[in-house]
Amino acid sequence: MHEKHAKFFVNLLGADNAYFDDAHRIAYCYDATRKRHLPDGVLFPRDERDVSEILKYCNENKIIIVPRGAGSGFTGGALAHEGGVVLAFEKHMNKILEIDMQNMVAVVQPGCININLQREAEKLGLFYPPDPASQEYSTLGGNVSENAGGMRAAKYGITKDYVMALRAVLPSGEVIRAGKRTIKDVAGYNISGILIASEGTLAVITEITLKLIAKPKFRKTAMGIFPSVNAAMNAVYKTMAAGVTPVAMEFLDALCIRAVETKFNKGLPQDAGALLITDVDGDVLDGLEQDLATIERVFRENGASEFRRAKDESERNDIWFARRNCSQAINIYGNLKLNEDITVPRSKLPELLERIGGVAEKYGVQVPCFGHTGDGNVHTNVMVVDKADPSQVESGHKAIEEIFKIAVELGGTLSGEHGIGISKAEFMPLAFTPAEMELFRNIKKAFDPNNILNPFKMGL
Amino acid sequence: MHEKHAKFFVNLLGADNAYFDDAHRIAYCYDATRKRHLPDGVLFPRDERDVSEILKYCNENKIIIVPRGAGSGFTGGALAHEGGVVLAFEKHMNKILEIDMQNMVAVVQPGCININLQREAEKLGLFYPPDPASQEYSTLGGNVSENAGGMRAAKYGITKDYVMALRAVLPSGEVIRAGKRTIKDVAGYNISGILIASEGTLAVITEITLKLIAKPKFRKTAMGIFPSVNAAMNAVYKTMAAGVTPVAMEFLDALCIRAVETKFNKGLPQDAGALLITDVDGDVLDGLEQDLATIERVFRENGASEFRRAKDESERNDIWFARRNCSQAINIYGNLKLNEDITVPRSKLPELLERIGGVAEKYGVQVPCFGHTGDGNVHTNVMVVDKADPSQVESGHKAIEEIFKIAVELGGTLSGEHGIGISKAEFMPLAFTPAEMELFRNIKKAFDPNNILNPFKMGL
Repeated sequence: MHEKHAKFFVNLLGADNAYFDDAHRIAYCYDATRKRHLPDGVLFPRDERDVSEILKYCNENKIIIVPRGAGSGFTGGALAHEGGVVLAFEKHMNKILEIDMQNMVAVVQPGCININLQREAEKLGLFYPPDPASQEYSTLGGNVSENAGGMRAAKYGITKDYVMALRAVLPSGEVIRAGKRTIKDVAGYNISGILIASEGTLAVITEITLKLIAKPKFRKTAMGIFPSVNAAMNAVYKTMAAGVTPVAMEFLDALCIRAVETKFNKGLPQDAGALLITDVDGDVLDGLEQDLATIERVFRENGASEFRRAKDESERNDIWFARRNCSQAINIYGNLKLNEDITVPRSKLPELLERIGGVAEKYGVQVPCFGHTGDGNVHTNVMVVDKADPSQVESGHKAIEEIFKIAVELGGTLSGEHGIGISKAEFMPLAFTPAEMELFRNIKKAFDPNNILNPFKMGL
Repeated sequence: MHEKHAKFFVNLLGADNAYFDDAHRIAYCYDATRKRHLPDGVLFPRDERDVSEILKYCNENKIIIVPRGAGSGFTGGALAHEGGVVLAFEKHMNKILEIDMQNMVAVVQPGCININLQREAEKLGLFYPPDPASQEYSTLGGNVSENAGGMRAAKYGITKDYVMALRAVLPSGEVIRAGKRTIKDVAGYNISGILIASEGTLAVITEITLKLIAKPKFRKTAMGIFPSVNAAMNAVYKTMAAGVTPVAMEFLDALCIRAVETKFNKGLPQDAGALLITDVDGDVLDGLEQDLATIERVFRENGASEFRRAKDESERNDIWFARRNCSQAINIYGNLKLNEDITVPRSKLPELLERIGGVAEKYGVQVPCFGHTGDGNVHTNVMVVDKADPSQVESGHKAIEEIFKIAVELGGTLSGEHGIGISKAEFMPLAFTPAEMELFRNIKKAFDPNNILNPFKMGL
């Protein structure tokens, strides 16, 4: 970083909020992709005014800005792969500013950790449903920028369904407000709508107003064991079509079940073809019993050999154990995991899983799959036995590309939750036409004419 | 219309799909604003390819295009106030293309009438919740373009909450696809998000994929009579805070009650201060009884002198009669109605209604209010006794402007459902900063560099 620029940032923020030393640069050079890109500096804005001054200066001096939440992203959204300064919100702009009981909304700063909001809301009998697997550490600013999903999406939707209003700063330094603390607001373009999932490329979010709902009083958990992936996938969409909206409908395939059993010995049948774990919730116990009865009937009609209901919290935890520890367990299949989060319409799940099986065979890799099948979102893990062998790694990457093509063919998407960032940038032409890519670039330019905000991400 | 252009359109579409005669121009010159603006021609595209060819030609020749649904809008979104050709979808592009039971989505053309989708979905046990008052004739293309609300928004949200994917044509003639038949999709910018509520200014929507949900099995209706608006407004948000999410929580003030009684003699207490009508729905009767018991308790705690539950369909219709016929009944207060649809956070409803009372007094007008208080959306009707008297009309307009200012001050919006169009364009600077307006213009330019799509609407 040019000394002149470093001086400006130190003057603006104070020496304890602007760092250019190696220790800080290294500490902010990684994310969950395990890629590393050293930024030129790390800034900790104290408030929106700081953000505005930083952006204005960077815009005038063409300095790249990379906004960063917890750095828990899977696609490099928070990586300074072209250099520039990282804008980190964890130090100061991390607060819950307000929980408004009357209007059932929360106002938070971007660096606020997801679980903190969930906990505070629940203390008041309210509920913030989006629960990405990273909820214990990921920030709401990051969640909004990536439009994070989670386990409860099948019933409660994803981050975008809870964003009511945003404050954000444009590269010019101008502060904009988008949306209101109201369900209905149709004045002006839906700026919140386009900022969500924009991966920090359009503006820097400085305040988020989120919808809260009443906390459901009861929750029930059940599990079904299926002879095949196909049977389980049929059970998923037939359950929803039968009028039940489970909170979660989570899936493990045979490879995942075997891995969990091998590692943790939990008494799952080693020869099971697939496993579905489902949660239902609501305010009326009778209603939940009805739902569970419907689920059991549909599961059995679709070949479930076993159906277990959790009688208490400890049985619930037992059932969920397999799902929660699955990602870790499948490391038995290799020391390099290429994990993607493709999503297809629910009805296409059987075909998707079958064709992934074909890809695995073709490239001689194992591809354990698990995920949120209630919303068609499958975490696909191409396991490379030995990452030291370049030919194995290459086969893994080829398998991934083929799986992306299949997802798109089936009307699905490259990413259900993780975003595009730098990891999936090269695959954008599989999913979008040149006209669509050009429109993205024009929108980027409308917000950020000098291309200083997270440039060259998302294949732009 | 220049003859050269007319010829092009007739060649492209056939003489029975391209009209430039006075009869057609007049038939397509109005909407619910009662303003009239003659278009230069009316085109009935047969399919997306027609739309693409039309846009490409118009873009090259700088011909204005005004996309039009049923012309039922309240803000002039479908009016050719700067001339140009109207693009009407009612003749050909009006179909339900698919109802996909497995994924619970419907695919429709923009000219499909809202109620047709509701009916077809319900035949299959599914449910499309957004129900604008115009549902019997307004089109889903118009609903998406204005982000239409309705009675059921408090529980089920609004049009934007149901749009999963769109196909649209850019002014260049390029077809774009946005979104997927999946709950989760975070690849690329959220183009559906920005097209919703864009009032036909960014692209022409040619296909809409909408989320359907399972139809709730039971519905219950109740009514509370309150001594004052304030008491009723407190009851509204306290009901929601008590964990009940009513489908509808509709409100009539004293002037509305008196008007309905005067016109229809339905046995409502003439001296009532306010009335709340509420619907709850669900799959478990016990749960609905619980909800009604909570509502009754909260209503009575907040001063309700009477609480009626509908025992059957006929009593339900009786209760809803007042709300359904309210808009017509208040015409007893004047022959010019300036009706707006401001929205504020629910907790601000008491203050909003009180301050509207002050405005009414100041300008010597009556301002009956009714609306969807479950979501803070109040239909505010400034009644001008005699529209032939310019000074009365002027007072009415001043009152409206002041009411807008109050709504914005209270954290609300100029429009909850109707959009901005031309009617509210002049008020945009009340709600948005110059930087926000400039951003809107930049976004407009990113989609429509030649400004041919519904130009100069929304104050742009």
